[in-house]
Amino acid sequence: MAVIDLNADLGEGFGVWRLGDDDAMLGIVTSANVACGFHAGDPAGLLRVCRGAAARGVRIGAQVSYRDLAGFGRRFIDVDPADLTADVVYQIGALQAIARAAGSTVSYVKPHGALYNTIVTNPEQAAAVAEAVRLVDDTLPVLGMAGSAFFAAAERLNLTTVAEAFADRAYRSDGQLVSRREPGAVLHDPETIAQRVQDMVSCGRVTAVDGSPVQLRVESVCVHGDSPGAVQIATAVRDGLRAADIDVRAFC
Amino acid sequence: MAVIDLNADLGEGFGVWRLGDDDAMLGIVTSANVACGFHAGDPAGLLRVCRGAAARGVRIGAQVSYRDLAGFGRRFIDVDPADLTADVVYQIGALQAIARAAGSTVSYVKPHGALYNTIVTNPEQAAAVAEAVRLVDDTLPVLGMAGSAFFAAAERLNLTTVAEAFADRAYRSDGQLVSRREPGAVLHDPETIAQRVQDMVSCGRVTAVDGSPVQLRVESVCVHGDSPGAVQIATAVRDGLRAADIDVRAFC
Amino acid sequence: MAVIDLNADLGEGFGVWRLGDDDAMLGIVTSANVACGFHAGDPAGLLRVCRGAAARGVRIGAQVSYRDLAGFGRRFIDVDPADLTADVVYQIGALQAIARAAGSTVSYVKPHGALYNTIVTNPEQAAAVAEAVRLVDDTLPVLGMAGSAFFAAAERLNLTTVAEAFADRAYRSDGQLVSRREPGAVLHDPETIAQRVQDMVSCGRVTAVDGSPVQLRVESVCVHGDSPGAVQIATAVRDGLRAADIDVRAFC
Amino acid sequence: MAVIDLNADLGEGFGVWRLGDDDAMLGIVTSANVACGFHAGDPAGLLRVCRGAAARGVRIGAQVSYRDLAGFGRRFIDVDPADLTADVVYQIGALQAIARAAGSTVSYVKPHGALYNTIVTNPEQAAAVAEAVRLVDDTLPVLGMAGSAFFAAAERLNLTTVAEAFADRAYRSDGQLVSRREPGAVLHDPETIAQRVQDMVSCGRVTAVDGSPVQLRVESVCVHGDSPGAVQIATAVRDGLRAADIDVRAFC
Repeated sequence: MAVIDLNADLGEGFGVWRLGDDDAMLGIVTSANVACGFHAGDPAGLLRVCRGAAARGVRIGAQVSYRDLAGFGRRFIDVDPADLTADVVYQIGALQAIARAAGSTVSYVKPHGALYNTIVTNPEQAAAVAEAVRLVDDTLPVLGMAGSAFFAAAERLNLTTVAEAFADRAYRSDGQLVSRREPGAVLHDPETIAQRVQDMVSCGRVTAVDGSPVQLRVESVCVHGDSPGAVQIATAVRDGLRAADIDVRAFC
Repeated sequence: MAVIDLNADLGEGFGVWRLGDDDAMLGIVTSANVACGFHAGDPAGLLRVCRGAAARGVRIGAQVSYRDLAGFGRRFIDVDPADLTADVVYQIGALQAIARAAGSTVSYVKPHGALYNTIVTNPEQAAAVAEAVRLVDDTLPVLGMAGSAFFAAAERLNLTTVAEAFADRAYRSDGQLVSRREPGAVLHDPETIAQRVQDMVSCGRVTAVDGSPVQLRVESVCVHGDSPGAVQIATAVRDGLRAADIDVRAFC
Repeated sequence: MAVIDLNADLGEGFGVWRLGDDDAMLGIVTSANVACGFHAGDPAGLLRVCRGAAARGVRIGAQVSYRDLAGFGRRFIDVDPADLTADVVYQIGALQAIARAAGSTVSYVKPHGALYNTIVTNPEQAAAVAEAVRLVDDTLPVLGMAGSAFFAAAERLNLTTVAEAFADRAYRSDGQLVSRREPGAVLHDPETIAQRVQDMVSCGRVTAVDGSPVQLRVESVCVHGDSPGAVQIATAVRDGLRAADIDVRAFC
Repeated sequence: MAVIDLNADLGEGFGVWRLGDDDAMLGIVTSANVACGFHAGDPAGLLRVCRGAAARGVRIGAQVSYRDLAGFGRRFIDVDPADLTADVVYQIGALQAIARAAGSTVSYVKPHGALYNTIVTNPEQAAAVAEAVRLVDDTLPVLGMAGSAFFAAAERLNLTTVAEAFADRAYRSDGQLVSRREPGAVLHDPETIAQRVQDMVSCGRVTAVDGSPVQLRVESVCVHGDSPGAVQIATAVRDGLRAADIDVRAFC
């Protein structure tokens, strides 16, 4: 029986501000990428979402980011790699204590936003993030894109890599994502997305925008938590996987 | 043979900004109260000071604070106790990971500045800080003032309390510190301070501003790291203790 | 014909985070208390709301606050008065430039949240805020509570004071607001609120929680922009005033 | 008689942290590039330095930056141009109010650090900064590098551009600065620097690292305020200019 993990970004409010419906998403996903305070997430909000995750048996990952609340971590910052390593160590540790206070633990690390995108190709920042994980706990898996500079750096340090695919994003024939600036980059129909995820997981394959089949290594599927219709899409994905007898379960 | 710990606040720069001479102080003290990013301390700077502490065998404590970089944690903030607990958990965890990355560990917790002063008397915030320590690791000792609401709260949670005295501060006859707003609140002469510390440690007693003797519970002595003459005063204190055959050693 | 101003807090998002429905509220109120970046409001968001206000002829006020994004300016901070003056000067100036870039101007100053509440009674912080307004432009009116320490300080500096009443808050018989911690502090029914505002404006009077009539000086009525039902309540208030032939118009 | 302006970056502390000797530099330069809070500068510190500038007749410029206290504005951030425009408007306005409170005014705008370097070549961010100046006050001159994308953008908007040269930096034969990562990028000897500035101003020429003469448009000379020996170098530059009968005077 096939097995797959579903992950989503959670805990991305700050103070009075909320983003997405964390409670609903915690009822759907098996892994919660919880913000760590650098792009979002005040400690009290993080503790709340970690308690929710603990109560529902959802795994907690540290969603580490550039330090950029105003830009929500979506802007590339040319951080010195040594500083980036320290920034990531700090964030993982902060969430570890929050998770512990919630009766759980941090089970993996996933970079957020512009940092995620940057370390697909930037070897210095990729190595800096991987080094941070190693320094904190070299048994922590990292969640990211197969074939990325980040995975190459992580593997050099003998970290476990977990490859994810995106439920609602269009792919190019080379296995990369279609840029959000191009039309059709994001899919919106829950049934289409659910079917697509079923195919990804069953066959390790997705149809690219040019119609060609693309092989994907998929150990986790990322569903968005804050887009319009996020809860409905995530529910359709989860129901579709179950209907296809695929076990939805945390990877770690 | 009497034994005493010497502690100082370190790692209190931020980005390009430095405060005090961390390197020199690490050669003198036995416990470093390292900032955690809320009143001071960027992650790279914290990693640097934790590496220095690890190299010299100085114990690392988490110096937790209100979230207030602009005010250096010196202003009372009426934080909701539940939020304060989460803030403190977050800070301890962040420094734990930094200390681990430096090959060391966080051995105790000491509140900073206005938070320190507030929880001498404010039972709600005192309980919130103690609860944070318990949630992260109930074997972590807390460093603070004997007789404080903080110690009362910590003891209710079975946390270990470590009482400190201040090398360069004047005391009132009731054992409280003379407010910094009053004249004579801070002592400046290294020899006077060194002698005073020797008496505190040998006899558990200090002479108050009105000339009366005050009994003090003293397991650690706080020397300041960023005042003018800080290094000279700390050196005099350490040399005076040694001359009196008092062993200067971390409490934990 | 009676005239009244309607004000609401707007521009209180930050980065990706939004709060309330600024667009809808700009169609209802005559004065927008726009955040200045210290409790909420990134520059691009502030520019957007100022452009909206300019397009609809809504006056812009600088809603100044303690520096506290994590606490949304709702926590008392024991800021040194001289620092508070500088903080308020900075915020007013920042919003003046944003308003100018939007083709408008800052027409008044209104303190936010905990700062608002504090300077009802705290004379040092009240004087610090009034002094800031004087330093920037002593022709700028200040919006606040009649009888407050803030108004006393402002009047000593010959600033124009504009007294506001709260549409949806219960009053005590001494003219102060019932604390939000007490039951019944906030009213929710749009029709009740609308009728109450009509009475406030027509008669300068409100019925206190104990049933006694309270005289109020009312030059502006504050409606909330971010509570559930905010737009509906504000619409009811505005319609009720018009039905009573009261002219809803900015005070400045 | 030749005339030249001397400018330096000032007000670059934050809270308890100081950088450089603002008081000494205010006795030497004619234009102070005062931080605006995004890379450095808390409001009370900015007010202090603006009062010092006002007292000594030194012109105040708004030294605008990326929002990056942790990185001191020295890291490129891929900010959306519209957001950058709003960020710069906000900063100029904030400093305008602070300068007004100090009895002075903002006389020009100079970008800081990574923003300065980026808009030498990045046309989108260059245009965004120029547009911000135009929106606030199109009579405000901008201080920067001749031949930069920033000056091109500013000139398209009919802003006044003021070209600066760097007293202590080595130049390439194409008129660009030698990167700080290369050896010899920064000069340290006060007399050498003073002579070099004298030649720049008298002849509009500097000797590049390869020995070739480079023509420079120079209306202001930038001396550093926070490097070791900053005050001594700035004094030597100023004395050298006077000895050569060059009038040191603000450009505006």
